[in-house]
Amino acid sequence: MTTKATLRRRVYLELFASARSDGKLTRTNRMIVVFILMSVALAIVGTERQVTVDNRTVLRWAEFGFGVIFLVEYVARFWAAAERPGGGAAMRKRVDWALTFFALVDLAVVIASLVPFLVTGAPIFRLVRLFRLASLLRFGEFSNALRALSAAIVERRYDLAVTGALAGLLVLVGATALYWAEGSEQPEAFGSIPRAMWWSIITLTTVGYGDVSPVTTIGKVLAAIVALGGIGLVAMPTGIIAAAFSDAMQRHREARVVPSSAAPEKL
Amino acid sequence: MTTKATLRRRVYLELFASARSDGKLTRTNRMIVVFILMSVALAIVGTERQVTVDNRTVLRWAEFGFGVIFLVEYVARFWAAAERPGGGAAMRKRVDWALTFFALVDLAVVIASLVPFLVTGAPIFRLVRLFRLASLLRFGEFSNALRALSAAIVERRYDLAVTGALAGLLVLVGATALYWAEGSEQPEAFGSIPRAMWWSIITLTTVGYGDVSPVTTIGKVLAAIVALGGIGLVAMPTGIIAAAFSDAMQRHREARVVPSSAAPEKL
Amino acid sequence: MTTKATLRRRVYLELFASARSDGKLTRTNRMIVVFILMSVALAIVGTERQVTVDNRTVLRWAEFGFGVIFLVEYVARFWAAAERPGGGAAMRKRVDWALTFFALVDLAVVIASLVPFLVTGAPIFRLVRLFRLASLLRFGEFSNALRALSAAIVERRYDLAVTGALAGLLVLVGATALYWAEGSEQPEAFGSIPRAMWWSIITLTTVGYGDVSPVTTIGKVLAAIVALGGIGLVAMPTGIIAAAFSDAMQRHREARVVPSSAAPEKL
Amino acid sequence: MTTKATLRRRVYLELFASARSDGKLTRTNRMIVVFILMSVALAIVGTERQVTVDNRTVLRWAEFGFGVIFLVEYVARFWAAAERPGGGAAMRKRVDWALTFFALVDLAVVIASLVPFLVTGAPIFRLVRLFRLASLLRFGEFSNALRALSAAIVERRYDLAVTGALAGLLVLVGATALYWAEGSEQPEAFGSIPRAMWWSIITLTTVGYGDVSPVTTIGKVLAAIVALGGIGLVAMPTGIIAAAFSDAMQRHREARVVPSSAAPEKL
Repeated sequence: MTTKATLRRRVYLELFASARSDGKLTRTNRMIVVFILMSVALAIVGTERQVTVDNRTVLRWAEFGFGVIFLVEYVARFWAAAERPGGGAAMRKRVDWALTFFALVDLAVVIASLVPFLVTGAPIFRLVRLFRLASLLRFGEFSNALRALSAAIVERRYDLAVTGALAGLLVLVGATALYWAEGSEQPEAFGSIPRAMWWSIITLTTVGYGDVSPVTTIGKVLAAIVALGGIGLVAMPTGIIAAAFSDAMQRHREARVVPSSAAPEKL
Repeated sequence: MTTKATLRRRVYLELFASARSDGKLTRTNRMIVVFILMSVALAIVGTERQVTVDNRTVLRWAEFGFGVIFLVEYVARFWAAAERPGGGAAMRKRVDWALTFFALVDLAVVIASLVPFLVTGAPIFRLVRLFRLASLLRFGEFSNALRALSAAIVERRYDLAVTGALAGLLVLVGATALYWAEGSEQPEAFGSIPRAMWWSIITLTTVGYGDVSPVTTIGKVLAAIVALGGIGLVAMPTGIIAAAFSDAMQRHREARVVPSSAAPEKL
Repeated sequence: MTTKATLRRRVYLELFASARSDGKLTRTNRMIVVFILMSVALAIVGTERQVTVDNRTVLRWAEFGFGVIFLVEYVARFWAAAERPGGGAAMRKRVDWALTFFALVDLAVVIASLVPFLVTGAPIFRLVRLFRLASLLRFGEFSNALRALSAAIVERRYDLAVTGALAGLLVLVGATALYWAEGSEQPEAFGSIPRAMWWSIITLTTVGYGDVSPVTTIGKVLAAIVALGGIGLVAMPTGIIAAAFSDAMQRHREARVVPSSAAPEKL
Repeated sequence: MTTKATLRRRVYLELFASARSDGKLTRTNRMIVVFILMSVALAIVGTERQVTVDNRTVLRWAEFGFGVIFLVEYVARFWAAAERPGGGAAMRKRVDWALTFFALVDLAVVIASLVPFLVTGAPIFRLVRLFRLASLLRFGEFSNALRALSAAIVERRYDLAVTGALAGLLVLVGATALYWAEGSEQPEAFGSIPRAMWWSIITLTTVGYGDVSPVTTIGKVLAAIVALGGIGLVAMPTGIIAAAFSDAMQRHREARVVPSSAAPEKL
């Protein structure tokens, strides 16, 4: 990319996804994505006692290994941050970088993996690495799709507000109807509107666990009306987002047919 | 908006959403929307014994507080109603306003909050405040979306009638099939067509509580056919509304690109 | 419609929906639609013992009443059938009409309502009246929508075949996977592929009764993969029909903007 | 198709779907499709002990019959494979064909049906015949639809990646939330994130068996938020595929209006 690249510059270009104008992830970045996914999987599996009892040592060492990898990467990024665009002393740039949100997340991840007492105490905390993932996936093709998705949500905010409000109203009306019909029959499940809202939400999303369901005739009639009338209404906001997202991606694809001259980043 | 506005006129413009040509809600109206939502939430929570036992006094005072707020607003609106467009005496205009549907709802809400014996007797009654909400949200951006939604429903009434009739037929056919197959095996659940319709509706909406389900082989085969054949058919009306609504909003957005000169209301 | 209309002609035009060129239902036809819906509702309710025990006499008389109405209508239609277009003797035309599918259905309905021993024996048989309904709703606006729906299905038959085959394959693969994983653990639910298909269909349609569900870890993992991968695939055929139907109705609406001169039927 | 067709050539054209330029299946091929479907159905039914106990002999003979049919077909195809396009000796062409994937599948199917000890040992193995089906259905109208479907998936791979990643994230977040809220209350169901993911997946796909569901208030609130927020998000990938597939088929239909001169295959 540049002929007189020093080692630091090469490390910078390799580690900082933002440094590349085409937004593609470097090989190192791709490897880090894989390491993060693996360490997240490890953190998830690590909550299951049946696994941890037999493999305590293995898990601890794997955790430690990922911690070292992330530490090395953090130190390398800290060092290479001096190559970031803009004026100022190298150390100043490094500190600036270290105080960015994603760098702090990064640091937290490293600490959580390496300090033993934190490791045993809060396995959920390690899921913070998913934010690390977000910091990498902000770039490239993936980011266009994400931007299309959020643009779709913003563009259709009124559609979403209306259908969301209707869905909320339906949940409330359904809950009130069943509270009225079954409240005295099943006080545990329908004894108040908030309780009945659990039934209402689980029914209108069509999940339907069956832990609570009407038993009286009038309750069943009302529930059937609510279910028939409201089916999909609760799913309408998602349908709207899906349609808008699909349209936005389609436009994006059509626009890309015209070749865009990917100019190298100004340094 | 007008240079020689008296206090009464200013109150009128602040409280009556219909007074403003741009359909935007004033700051006072927005606050009232928030108060209504809070008081509705209070009414919902107030049905839960676990909450009310410990917080009876707090809830009663909060309820009273909202009552006072709505009373003050009602009186202010009654007074300012004299500024409504059209001829006639001030008092005449006020009475005309007081007899409108939403003003009556308003009054009912105030009374329900302030008269103690009504408060303890009918908590559901307080949900009438949601109508109050409707009276405010008829205006502004929200109203365009609502109008688009209802226009979509009207435009596609035949589509809805056909798919609705097919869905109804499927519910009936499914219920009859299971009544025939499982009626003698599970008389409590499938002993009559109306009983089997409970199963049929809960299955075809894909809620599937599992409180009733076929146990015989023939029953399961028929249920599987009904489920496979009917899946989504019951959801088709909603899909049609969603698509029509989405199209209408899209057209509305495209039309809005042309700047519309929002002329001030003729008084 | 015609100045020298005899009584028989007027009855013909009133009762035979096919006689009118605009496809609109006459007032008498609309009343008959209502009567059919009422008698179907009666037949449905009549299967519920809780209702019939207390209202045996009422139900029997209502059933008899509908029988008389349908008998009168049948006789009137038989008499007026002489006015049907085409040559030949009046009686010949009547017999021709009486042998059409819908006329035979009509007769069966009348007999089922009036002959007592049939009435008590086969309440489901009375649902045959729904075919009667179909004979009337073949006309008018409703019929256009129905035609659009069936045209949509024919047009997209390959789409449906492919997605249907994929859905069927998924049901089979899911069933085989769970049969393999849970067959020995839960022989009653997963002891054979046909048994496992009950689980597979109820899961992939997202009904999810919960009467059968995997209990082993491997079974849950496989079930989760099947559910995630297959969700909506089973619903895809319906989605395709819905989209095609929606498009067809939209085209129909746009075409109708051009006023069509509804010429009176050639007699 | 060719005037000087020998018997071998005729058999070749009848059995090899790839030999025909129009991609239509011959009558023999259609029959084989039916035989495969029947033998697959037999293999499925054959796993059900209730059926096999009473019909052991019938099933065995039916299985043997299908084996003979597939053997005859295999031998005929092996013989006719000499007519395949390209140079070389007849036997060489046959061996080349016999080593293709689908020919090997074919052979495996024949062996599995005819060798008795394999028959009793591995009924699932017989489902391999479905691959045989795939080898035939690669041709004709069906194949266009399949190609449209896979093209749709490839074209929208980024859309699918984004929505798939979001769905996966939602599953994880939901599982973590419930693990935190209900882990100590219901250790069997929510005692680890992998366990909670079972709940999470079954809820977000709206299957909702009800074998595990939250019981604490905080668990229900979190579950309701996850259900409301995530409903459809998990179904979005399928929705995207369905839309893309539907569009592709529509384009295909429009393109087909222009008559394409189906030139006979070059031999």
